[in-house]
Amino acid sequence: MPSISPHLFVVFGATGDLTRRKLIPALYHLMKSRESADNCFVLGTARSDWSDDTFREVARRALRDAGHPTDEVDAWCAQRLFYQCLGDSGTDIGALQDRIHRLEAEHSLPGNRAFYLSLPPSAYAPTIERLGDAGLNQSDGWTRVVIEKPFGSDLDSAQRLNDRIHRHFEEDQVYRIDHYLGKETVQNLLVFRFGNALFESLWNRDRIERVEITVAEDLGVGGRAGYYDQSGHLRDMVQNHITQLLTLVAMEPPAAMEADAIRQEKVKVLNAVEPLDIEEDVVLGQYRAGRVGETAVPGYREEEDVPDDSTTKTFAALRYRIANWRWQGVPFYVRTGKRLPTKLTQIAVRFRSAPVALFQPGGRPCVPGNDGCEAEPNELLITLQPNEGFDLRFEVKAPDNGMQSRGPTGNERMELATQQLSFSYEDAFGPVPDAYETLLRDIVTGDQTLFVRADEVEGSWQLYNPLLHTDALPVHPYRAGTWGPDAASRLLSTWTTTPREDPAVTAEPS
Amino acid sequence: MPSISPHLFVVFGATGDLTRRKLIPALYHLMKSRESADNCFVLGTARSDWSDDTFREVARRALRDAGHPTDEVDAWCAQRLFYQCLGDSGTDIGALQDRIHRLEAEHSLPGNRAFYLSLPPSAYAPTIERLGDAGLNQSDGWTRVVIEKPFGSDLDSAQRLNDRIHRHFEEDQVYRIDHYLGKETVQNLLVFRFGNALFESLWNRDRIERVEITVAEDLGVGGRAGYYDQSGHLRDMVQNHITQLLTLVAMEPPAAMEADAIRQEKVKVLNAVEPLDIEEDVVLGQYRAGRVGETAVPGYREEEDVPDDSTTKTFAALRYRIANWRWQGVPFYVRTGKRLPTKLTQIAVRFRSAPVALFQPGGRPCVPGNDGCEAEPNELLITLQPNEGFDLRFEVKAPDNGMQSRGPTGNERMELATQQLSFSYEDAFGPVPDAYETLLRDIVTGDQTLFVRADEVEGSWQLYNPLLHTDALPVHPYRAGTWGPDAASRLLSTWTTTPREDPAVTAEPS
Repeated sequence: MPSISPHLFVVFGATGDLTRRKLIPALYHLMKSRESADNCFVLGTARSDWSDDTFREVARRALRDAGHPTDEVDAWCAQRLFYQCLGDSGTDIGALQDRIHRLEAEHSLPGNRAFYLSLPPSAYAPTIERLGDAGLNQSDGWTRVVIEKPFGSDLDSAQRLNDRIHRHFEEDQVYRIDHYLGKETVQNLLVFRFGNALFESLWNRDRIERVEITVAEDLGVGGRAGYYDQSGHLRDMVQNHITQLLTLVAMEPPAAMEADAIRQEKVKVLNAVEPLDIEEDVVLGQYRAGRVGETAVPGYREEEDVPDDSTTKTFAALRYRIANWRWQGVPFYVRTGKRLPTKLTQIAVRFRSAPVALFQPGGRPCVPGNDGCEAEPNELLITLQPNEGFDLRFEVKAPDNGMQSRGPTGNERMELATQQLSFSYEDAFGPVPDAYETLLRDIVTGDQTLFVRADEVEGSWQLYNPLLHTDALPVHPYRAGTWGPDAASRLLSTWTTTPREDPAVTAEPS
Repeated sequence: MPSISPHLFVVFGATGDLTRRKLIPALYHLMKSRESADNCFVLGTARSDWSDDTFREVARRALRDAGHPTDEVDAWCAQRLFYQCLGDSGTDIGALQDRIHRLEAEHSLPGNRAFYLSLPPSAYAPTIERLGDAGLNQSDGWTRVVIEKPFGSDLDSAQRLNDRIHRHFEEDQVYRIDHYLGKETVQNLLVFRFGNALFESLWNRDRIERVEITVAEDLGVGGRAGYYDQSGHLRDMVQNHITQLLTLVAMEPPAAMEADAIRQEKVKVLNAVEPLDIEEDVVLGQYRAGRVGETAVPGYREEEDVPDDSTTKTFAALRYRIANWRWQGVPFYVRTGKRLPTKLTQIAVRFRSAPVALFQPGGRPCVPGNDGCEAEPNELLITLQPNEGFDLRFEVKAPDNGMQSRGPTGNERMELATQQLSFSYEDAFGPVPDAYETLLRDIVTGDQTLFVRADEVEGSWQLYNPLLHTDALPVHPYRAGTWGPDAASRLLSTWTTTPREDPAVTAEPS
């Protein structure tokens, strides 16, 4: 394990929800689990006039609630956590700078600093400029800046944000967060594809018929309506998380398992995606009242803080074409939305059928696709949530006991049944680490693999820019608890994707 | 399900062990499970002067011991079972013929007859000739003759036996038994390979490094020494069962799932196997005293009825080369023997490694095979016994918790762990049908797929004929409870094959 060098982890927005819920627990666990993390400290900062003790008390409560032992939590908070007020305007960078220098002197730190911007998007650029103007963009050690999503709201705003960042920071100092990339299964996609010659040799247009990506939420907009109604589902999910999944599934083998080699291949995929034919390739929707599981739920326009006439998209189905040697002719389908029947993030790879279907009545072969000739294709399901793992669906011979076979074919011996081989990460390895812990570890060890590069984020916005700036497309209503508007079946009527376990729908938050 | 037409199932050797242990239970279950099998009857015959009642009583006891309900068993035996003595010399075919005609008349049978030769090999040809001379080689319905293994003891004797059979029966009347072919997993090999485009597209020299076939018994020669010491392991296992597995794994897709189309492809494999280089490709052995599990067991020469100086082979390791477009350059290894550590029949397919090993310390790729560069290849294990099923071994990313990963590589995020996807027939479908029931069903429904064709059995003997007729090869001693003589590691030092479950060895019969 690479050791974690002594550093100061500075969190902007330290009084916020993300800090308490995600960052503090991840930093705690990261620092507790490494002997090398002895000399690492967290400096929270925000407008609020908190003391070190206020910050520590908030952190203590969060960590104790998470079940960590009280005395260890208390000791850790007392030794590692500090807080510096940024003043009423939130701009008192001088006070922050002084505090950084004092803490580094007190603890003999070498000047390694991470600045984590857990801030509203509008605050990214000003904060970065203040850091730069104060000379906090460099130090005697390393200096890294971490930016939460959303990174821009379209191509132009993302480019402007990149420009302003690059005025003060080198790209190798910049860590753009997409927390999907911290998930074990997303990372494991790289291992699955490039650590297994078996699968990689199948991973192309000769063997694969289509790829389907489903990112379904059963929840509605909840308390995020203020932000969400401005951004909509395309900005909230498609441009970032889903596009990351798309590039990881489609990318060529990188020259090495290094951040830039990998990100280079992802950018190449983005560049090879053909521009979306908006009218042909995209179906948008917004949920109406309905039932998710047993629970009646309101429509999007009835949600708190949502205008009665909102046309914000809560659902998108898309078809991508990738014009390169590996994928030409293989459609990639995406469907994603809120208030769908279940919470599910899954990539389904549907392999081509056998060229000849041999197991037919009377033993006579037929050609799949011809009249009445069917063959079940092999399918690989990669599930990110819930219950991370893989399922490989394949055909076996059903024993001659009349049970579970596909029904009489007249070819008794050779009745087939679809079965699956299943692998669950949790069964194999126990609880999966939190995505934020993975990402924070990589920030402090200096591995940019799981962060989004400037050209990558711009390439992704470029793909969706025409879609974001058109009003030409209807926003189809769909009933909450369904798989989206009927119009989406125009793209793909039957999805391979299905939940891994109990398909019972649920409206409970998870 | 194809219906079973009314018929008379005539068993030669009806007083023997196979009839009681296998044929009667299989016929019972087959006839009880089919409504269409109402008008089917069993006529046992042998030298012993049994009555119908003697035969029924033996059958009743066997079926009741197997847990079938007494009243159903009694009714079935009384209605369906008959016995006809063949006279002291075992040659009174006239009496048998009369009895057949009487039974057919009494039950209005259309003349469909199966003659099952559960006899010593020396009796096959004379019995067939008597059947032919009596005109029992044909009837108003169908007439089929079933021949147990061993079919000949070398190429010449097999050819002579085929010649004599063909003097009286057409090849489509002849059902040569290899009970391995009745096993679900052997049949499922056809489905696995040709019902799954996924696997078939990997099934060639581009993707597969080698194939290993293990047929291991933990038992010794037991009460079969009289036969076994004459035949040895090559005749007892290799020429028949193992060669069947080899051809099923290696065959091309058949034009149709029909007996002759499939058997044609199997014969093509036999014809493409290069002649064995006896000194290079074969290692033979005979077990000495040792321990299997906790139990001390005697050496082969100490077994009852085995001469003190016997050189009979109880172990063979072989390497095959198949000179065709699909397999050239891919070695097929076999190891099989008695008194090995465990009972295991397994085909292991080892896929080629990735061309570049990407998950290395520091992210620097290397080329597998080069100094210090290792990559775990993917492996597919097809287990026939015990616990029939498949295991697919592949690499996953080990989560960053230090557990179960392959050890520190210096590339923390990308430590890999080998996991497997496992499929068990019994878990999916419940108890697997007995091989004999499958084979008897095919005999009476007229499906020759799972029986060995004349040219197939001769092709197989041809392959081993030089080996059977040489004394040039040493018979290496090996300790009971080991994987054979050390000399066998010359062919392949590390086998992929491993037991599917608890690898604890056992000496208990199963």
